[in-house]
Amino acid sequence: MTHLRSASASETVDRAGARRRPGGRTERIRLQVIEAVLLELVESGYDALTVDAVAARAGVHRTTVYRRWRDVGGLLADVVDAATGTDWEPESTGSLRGDLTALNRQIEAALTGEPPVTAALIAASFRSGKASRALQRFWDDRYTRFEVLVRRAAERGEIPAATHARHVLVAATAPLYHHFVLLRMPPEPGLADRAAAAAAVAAVAGAFTDAPQNLP
Amino acid sequence: MTHLRSASASETVDRAGARRRPGGRTERIRLQVIEAVLLELVESGYDALTVDAVAARAGVHRTTVYRRWRDVGGLLADVVDAATGTDWEPESTGSLRGDLTALNRQIEAALTGEPPVTAALIAASFRSGKASRALQRFWDDRYTRFEVLVRRAAERGEIPAATHARHVLVAATAPLYHHFVLLRMPPEPGLADRAAAAAAVAAVAGAFTDAPQNLP
Repeated sequence: MTHLRSASASETVDRAGARRRPGGRTERIRLQVIEAVLLELVESGYDALTVDAVAARAGVHRTTVYRRWRDVGGLLADVVDAATGTDWEPESTGSLRGDLTALNRQIEAALTGEPPVTAALIAASFRSGKASRALQRFWDDRYTRFEVLVRRAAERGEIPAATHARHVLVAATAPLYHHFVLLRMPPEPGLADRAAAAAAVAAVAGAFTDAPQNLP
Repeated sequence: MTHLRSASASETVDRAGARRRPGGRTERIRLQVIEAVLLELVESGYDALTVDAVAARAGVHRTTVYRRWRDVGGLLADVVDAATGTDWEPESTGSLRGDLTALNRQIEAALTGEPPVTAALIAASFRSGKASRALQRFWDDRYTRFEVLVRRAAERGEIPAATHARHVLVAATAPLYHHFVLLRMPPEPGLADRAAAAAAVAAVAGAFTDAPQNLP
């Protein structure tokens, strides 16, 4: 989720070094096409997204795009998959609250960044089964990487050892997606930090273990 | 959010008593059209939703539908507005955790119910500005009604008086929307109760006041 944004055009191209040190032709074409999909999506939206428009913008022959990606769903899925593959390790601040706050600030930056790539991809996932499944893979990949935050907190003795990492992560991050993606509200000071702090305090109290019955 | 589902066809019609004791012709036509929109949306999805298909299914002349609702966005907005107008008071269980759990179970039932009206409307809100704004009004209406849960908890001395009600409600409910609407995961035992318990324990600890700095 955080790095859907980092799949955006120039960043991806920079990271892969495609423009400075061109890799294989196949990979170069892929990056051109991914960049074109993102620009089309952000500028014109899903309804205007066609294989032909993407091919034209990418400067790639349309038959190449059809052969490799087949349709708009295939293009969207590859955009998400490109972001999924990137290296990324969560920040380590020394406390669960600090780690979740750092994570939430990155997610907020991705959800409010320009161009609104993440929001456009999430919107597109409601239109394309392939894009939807790619987004599920992406989230699963990211949540799996983030689990280390929770494991580290358990190792420090900050939270119960039996804490479900995924539940903590969803509790911390879901309010941001709710706010920006579903409620479509403008940024709100404190939102990211507050959601992180609330999830951390609930985790410390044992709310994300299998037996949270003893909570107040 | 909870009662998007109760706007579904037969329920709305039953509630309004339109079939048993027909009201005015205008209201009867509205209910027929709303029922038709929901059935079209659930059976065929947004892409197949047209004013003509809705009019045919509702058994209402198409010019009547065009005159009153203008387009698909107008139809969707009215479906959501019909749900927004319904009377609804949150359950009172005597504790914040109990109240939020009851609320979350209703939301889970709405998000997993058949036909998947709520999910279909949320998906449609990514396509239609009118539907999106109607959904925002709907959520705002529901969150405003739910705020009484938090106020009651503050009056009982369960949570700090300065607790932001909306923040507690978003923390409690967002994991459900995240799970079902964005991650598109199947129901998971304990999800609704856990999210409610986590938000309640965080609220008790003061995580949703303006000065949550003193949290662990």
